[in-house]
Amino acid sequence: MVSERPRPMAPSRRNKIPVAVLGATGMVGQRLALLLSDHPWFELVELTASTRSAGHRYADVVPWRLERPLPGAIGALTVRETSVADVRAPLVFSALDASVAREIERPLAAAGHLVVSNASAHRMDDDVPLVVPEVNPDHLGLLGAQQRGGDGGLVTNPNCSTIGLVLGLAPLHRAAGVRRVVLSTLQAASGAGYPGVSSIDLVDNVVPGIPGEEEKIEAEPRKIFGSLDDSGAGGVIEAGIEVSSHTHRVPVIDGHLMAISVETDEGLSVARATELMASFRGEPQERGLPSAPSSLIEVVSAPDRPQPRLDRDAGGGMSVTVGRLRPCPVLGLRFELLSHNTWRGAAGGTVLIAETLVARGCLP
Amino acid sequence: MVSERPRPMAPSRRNKIPVAVLGATGMVGQRLALLLSDHPWFELVELTASTRSAGHRYADVVPWRLERPLPGAIGALTVRETSVADVRAPLVFSALDASVAREIERPLAAAGHLVVSNASAHRMDDDVPLVVPEVNPDHLGLLGAQQRGGDGGLVTNPNCSTIGLVLGLAPLHRAAGVRRVVLSTLQAASGAGYPGVSSIDLVDNVVPGIPGEEEKIEAEPRKIFGSLDDSGAGGVIEAGIEVSSHTHRVPVIDGHLMAISVETDEGLSVARATELMASFRGEPQERGLPSAPSSLIEVVSAPDRPQPRLDRDAGGGMSVTVGRLRPCPVLGLRFELLSHNTWRGAAGGTVLIAETLVARGCLP
Amino acid sequence: MVSERPRPMAPSRRNKIPVAVLGATGMVGQRLALLLSDHPWFELVELTASTRSAGHRYADVVPWRLERPLPGAIGALTVRETSVADVRAPLVFSALDASVAREIERPLAAAGHLVVSNASAHRMDDDVPLVVPEVNPDHLGLLGAQQRGGDGGLVTNPNCSTIGLVLGLAPLHRAAGVRRVVLSTLQAASGAGYPGVSSIDLVDNVVPGIPGEEEKIEAEPRKIFGSLDDSGAGGVIEAGIEVSSHTHRVPVIDGHLMAISVETDEGLSVARATELMASFRGEPQERGLPSAPSSLIEVVSAPDRPQPRLDRDAGGGMSVTVGRLRPCPVLGLRFELLSHNTWRGAAGGTVLIAETLVARGCLP
Amino acid sequence: MVSERPRPMAPSRRNKIPVAVLGATGMVGQRLALLLSDHPWFELVELTASTRSAGHRYADVVPWRLERPLPGAIGALTVRETSVADVRAPLVFSALDASVAREIERPLAAAGHLVVSNASAHRMDDDVPLVVPEVNPDHLGLLGAQQRGGDGGLVTNPNCSTIGLVLGLAPLHRAAGVRRVVLSTLQAASGAGYPGVSSIDLVDNVVPGIPGEEEKIEAEPRKIFGSLDDSGAGGVIEAGIEVSSHTHRVPVIDGHLMAISVETDEGLSVARATELMASFRGEPQERGLPSAPSSLIEVVSAPDRPQPRLDRDAGGGMSVTVGRLRPCPVLGLRFELLSHNTWRGAAGGTVLIAETLVARGCLP
Repeated sequence: MVSERPRPMAPSRRNKIPVAVLGATGMVGQRLALLLSDHPWFELVELTASTRSAGHRYADVVPWRLERPLPGAIGALTVRETSVADVRAPLVFSALDASVAREIERPLAAAGHLVVSNASAHRMDDDVPLVVPEVNPDHLGLLGAQQRGGDGGLVTNPNCSTIGLVLGLAPLHRAAGVRRVVLSTLQAASGAGYPGVSSIDLVDNVVPGIPGEEEKIEAEPRKIFGSLDDSGAGGVIEAGIEVSSHTHRVPVIDGHLMAISVETDEGLSVARATELMASFRGEPQERGLPSAPSSLIEVVSAPDRPQPRLDRDAGGGMSVTVGRLRPCPVLGLRFELLSHNTWRGAAGGTVLIAETLVARGCLP
Repeated sequence: MVSERPRPMAPSRRNKIPVAVLGATGMVGQRLALLLSDHPWFELVELTASTRSAGHRYADVVPWRLERPLPGAIGALTVRETSVADVRAPLVFSALDASVAREIERPLAAAGHLVVSNASAHRMDDDVPLVVPEVNPDHLGLLGAQQRGGDGGLVTNPNCSTIGLVLGLAPLHRAAGVRRVVLSTLQAASGAGYPGVSSIDLVDNVVPGIPGEEEKIEAEPRKIFGSLDDSGAGGVIEAGIEVSSHTHRVPVIDGHLMAISVETDEGLSVARATELMASFRGEPQERGLPSAPSSLIEVVSAPDRPQPRLDRDAGGGMSVTVGRLRPCPVLGLRFELLSHNTWRGAAGGTVLIAETLVARGCLP
Repeated sequence: MVSERPRPMAPSRRNKIPVAVLGATGMVGQRLALLLSDHPWFELVELTASTRSAGHRYADVVPWRLERPLPGAIGALTVRETSVADVRAPLVFSALDASVAREIERPLAAAGHLVVSNASAHRMDDDVPLVVPEVNPDHLGLLGAQQRGGDGGLVTNPNCSTIGLVLGLAPLHRAAGVRRVVLSTLQAASGAGYPGVSSIDLVDNVVPGIPGEEEKIEAEPRKIFGSLDDSGAGGVIEAGIEVSSHTHRVPVIDGHLMAISVETDEGLSVARATELMASFRGEPQERGLPSAPSSLIEVVSAPDRPQPRLDRDAGGGMSVTVGRLRPCPVLGLRFELLSHNTWRGAAGGTVLIAETLVARGCLP
Repeated sequence: MVSERPRPMAPSRRNKIPVAVLGATGMVGQRLALLLSDHPWFELVELTASTRSAGHRYADVVPWRLERPLPGAIGALTVRETSVADVRAPLVFSALDASVAREIERPLAAAGHLVVSNASAHRMDDDVPLVVPEVNPDHLGLLGAQQRGGDGGLVTNPNCSTIGLVLGLAPLHRAAGVRRVVLSTLQAASGAGYPGVSSIDLVDNVVPGIPGEEEKIEAEPRKIFGSLDDSGAGGVIEAGIEVSSHTHRVPVIDGHLMAISVETDEGLSVARATELMASFRGEPQERGLPSAPSSLIEVVSAPDRPQPRLDRDAGGGMSVTVGRLRPCPVLGLRFELLSHNTWRGAAGGTVLIAETLVARGCLP
């Protein structure tokens, strides 16, 4: 990854920012722990989980299920309770379930922490930015109103499917205006956490209708592609994009695949769409952030790609891969898109937001 | 299954119609052999395969991969070559690859055999009926023109995905006129035959873009929903339905699942669509044909159904199952549909065509 | 299945024996419900589950995951609590977890019910028969001592892996004395119940070391192959068979496969072992019991069989299939054995015990 | 990996040894290409495949199925024919099928190439070393006899299952003398190559009896643990170890799991076996070879490990992982062992042999 612009806020090795991970024993918490065990700017110093796990060594309570081993130094950390009193780090990553997130994320922000959350609890709140750093980093401006003079704040990372979808649509939307989208997802088991989906349901089987997922995929892009309300009222004016999603769980460990048909205001040839996607980059690429993939959208030409097992790790799991770009006889354009649901779609996306905040000088 | 009408042509047990299966060692050929081993009207007397297998006992050359054992009497049959000279039975089921079908199906018909084919070779030919017996049995009328006085003829069974799709659309089309459809398929491995897809491609993976499949799914419904040209020119005037399909192979043995969004000329409420689907029946049900499911479309209410492993055997594999019927914010209506790709979608569909032909008195 | 002997106790259709299933919502409970929905001797009248489910229709609370649909009449039954007060049926099938079984099975027996249990709680109790009806039906004699004049009693069905193993060893043991056994299992997901094993653990993976399984597989055969103690002390004198088992969970829905090496007191050729296995039958076959497979051990010759998906339903799921019989350079003889873990290994085995009890006139 | 001894023969970056890979389009060939694309001593300059692929860019003909992308520089190489005339590199890695290997490996050696082969064709030849570098590097001494003055020679890498087995047994054998072994394997699909096993056979299924595998697993350890015949006759005097193997194919991409029971001449406690295994190292570790894992045998304590997905990449795929070490009631000691079948078991093992040869100065 090459960036010509200087990294304005790169903390030095000596002076890493201490960070906490809330809900560290789940699948997303595990990815966050792995990612932060070796981050150039952040130092993972606190892990929290439920009361049952608190007080134990992380290695002793986490059902580690990642393909790489648990780093020893992280495993040795003592798990804390998920409470305002137990968290000290100025920068907090939340991988909590929505119900727990709803209770603690606002109080943590009020107590001065900058909380970057993967939970769905507050994503659609008026004063909370819902951010994909390459797409709508300007929404981080909502933090100002939210903080009202204090230091803390709450920023949210979208649903794992939304992120891939929005990254694929963004270059088309900017150039031609996305109006309507019909998509089907083939989503990995890790998206349901651990233990999540029973093996009985995913051997010789796929399952349609992931609970709560379609609503998020259809609502979140409207906010992400929306514009900041500069009338003084605050909040985001949602974009008029109509999305219809069909969701499915498939026997794949990691990587959400989506079959997407798109209608745009202005016509887009396959060649133009390919060019727009392949050249798309955003603030993270401009700033050369540590987690930003240099090639954001990998456009591939093989007729049977992208595939989850072969393509999910593109760009260290932070790129999305697009294939089968071709005309759609109904909506105009169609393609397949793959993104790693626990890297780009969760842990990595959350960390990239934090890196953007640091680079923008938003951290106290 | 209850039918009030008498079965007009039900052959007696003593007087079964001798039938042949061409391409009997493949996955569809195996299903045909299984189905025909115990059919009330037909008696399987001839099996053909490639030269390599000819002359051997079927049991010794078929890579049997069905969940039920190969019936002993069928296994004992000697495999013949796939040639006009080697086939004697008046009624012939073809499970040949398209390339072989292209060479032999017409000559067989010309030699006086009634050929019901699962191959794609002649599906779109002007004078060849492409039939789903519950949807367009009247297209069998094309046979007259085709035969020109002789006895033989060629009828084709649609692509395995097309059949499920068309059965789900038919009640909507009749009531409200289907205009545009966007669908994504999650297709079973058996659809690619044996050995078909490598296990390397379907462990922790799904594969988009099944070769040749999307073209068929998009073209065949136009013919099936078309009307016979009564201008004297023969052939079918295609319906103006626009279909966009995204296909995927998933690690499932049998059962194609489809996520379908539909736009109709007239609005359709979910309640009305449910009623139309649940009550849909056709000529096979009217006539009480042996392979006709009494409940053609099973509409289920659980939010995570249909699922391939749990629903594919509905109606002995001859029903389709529809679930998740709900409004589509883009096209109007959406749902999930499952059909068994080698029963309804291939072997069973082919036999149901033959039963329809017999019941209509089309057999010499 | 042909039997020359009359069925001594076959209850008439009018006069079926009312039966209950305890723990009816689990995987084994579901199989029991399915099996008993259409049993010639038994009529399923009561289903119990945990307090949470009690009072609801069975169809509304059971997470049905079988490949055949839930029979309507069974689905309509109201679930009862698992308590002595709530059970009326004279014959009770228990599919309870061991911990619940430990509390209620003895009290039910004391209250006059004949309890046939699939739970492990009391299998190794001195006065409780642990029975595979083809192998040690004489152990049912322990019931006399257990009942002490009353009517009730408790009989147990072995572990699902033990049953297959014991059926495969029995003909060898009778003829040549089994001394030592080393086996590895590849066990289906359904053996762990529902939700049981997470899909995260069984996609692109297998898991060694099923908790508690190896101890059962190693201990239970010693009791089953043991002889009744006729010294008056009661109980069973265990056989001196040494078993070493390695267990694994694999991504298979149903069917436990085992690779078995056996050492016998007397030498056994492969031909002799094949003959002994293929001709093995027991009291259920002699009596022509409804659930008894006529061909108890299917010996197959293909070098890559048995396989779970293709062979588990042999004999309606009640036969075991043996293949790859060949000399073992270390212990003498080796082979692969497959048995359906929820039919023969659980629900079917339990019902076969009950049928044996009825045929022997053990039911009040 | 830390080594105190100097690397005696480490070629400088400037002066890498040119190497060829024969049979480069298969699964093992792909791993070799990946490994050699970034090797400190070797530079991949030639790839060969069948006539059909020759003349094309490697990227255009290889069905790349690895989880990491094909390196661009390797993909750009032009594939050559697999013939003596087409190979120039002094060091040649063979990933050929046995039938092709049988024809070309000896001629290549006679032409002066040092051939390190993964093929089974010549493994059991008297004058050909069959080597696991940590176990029997002294067998490389056979090369002298083989070469008879010339430069070339042929060395073979054992079967992928044999390598894991032999690494696990070696520390026990040295300390206590391994006498008899019974093992069952659960082998990954990649071991059968691409396309290899059909997905129809590995969805909801496992397959026993991998063709040709058991013979290799039972014969090769006798040669590897054998001693050089110093009587002047040449060859290896085989060790008197009796091995019985049951093989199975399971739905796993990479990683062979084995359940092993061992009888040794002298008793071994679990504690002692653990210590022996955990501390085991050999010449590659002593010499600090590039592909040598510092921790050769990872002994893990979790009761459900090792698992293919979680443990196969230990030591970069070059370590083996042992778990569940416990007494075996039949043979004395038992455990589970996992090794990566295409890294340690094939490509990596082959390269480690070559590194050993270079370090010993065997290369011309």
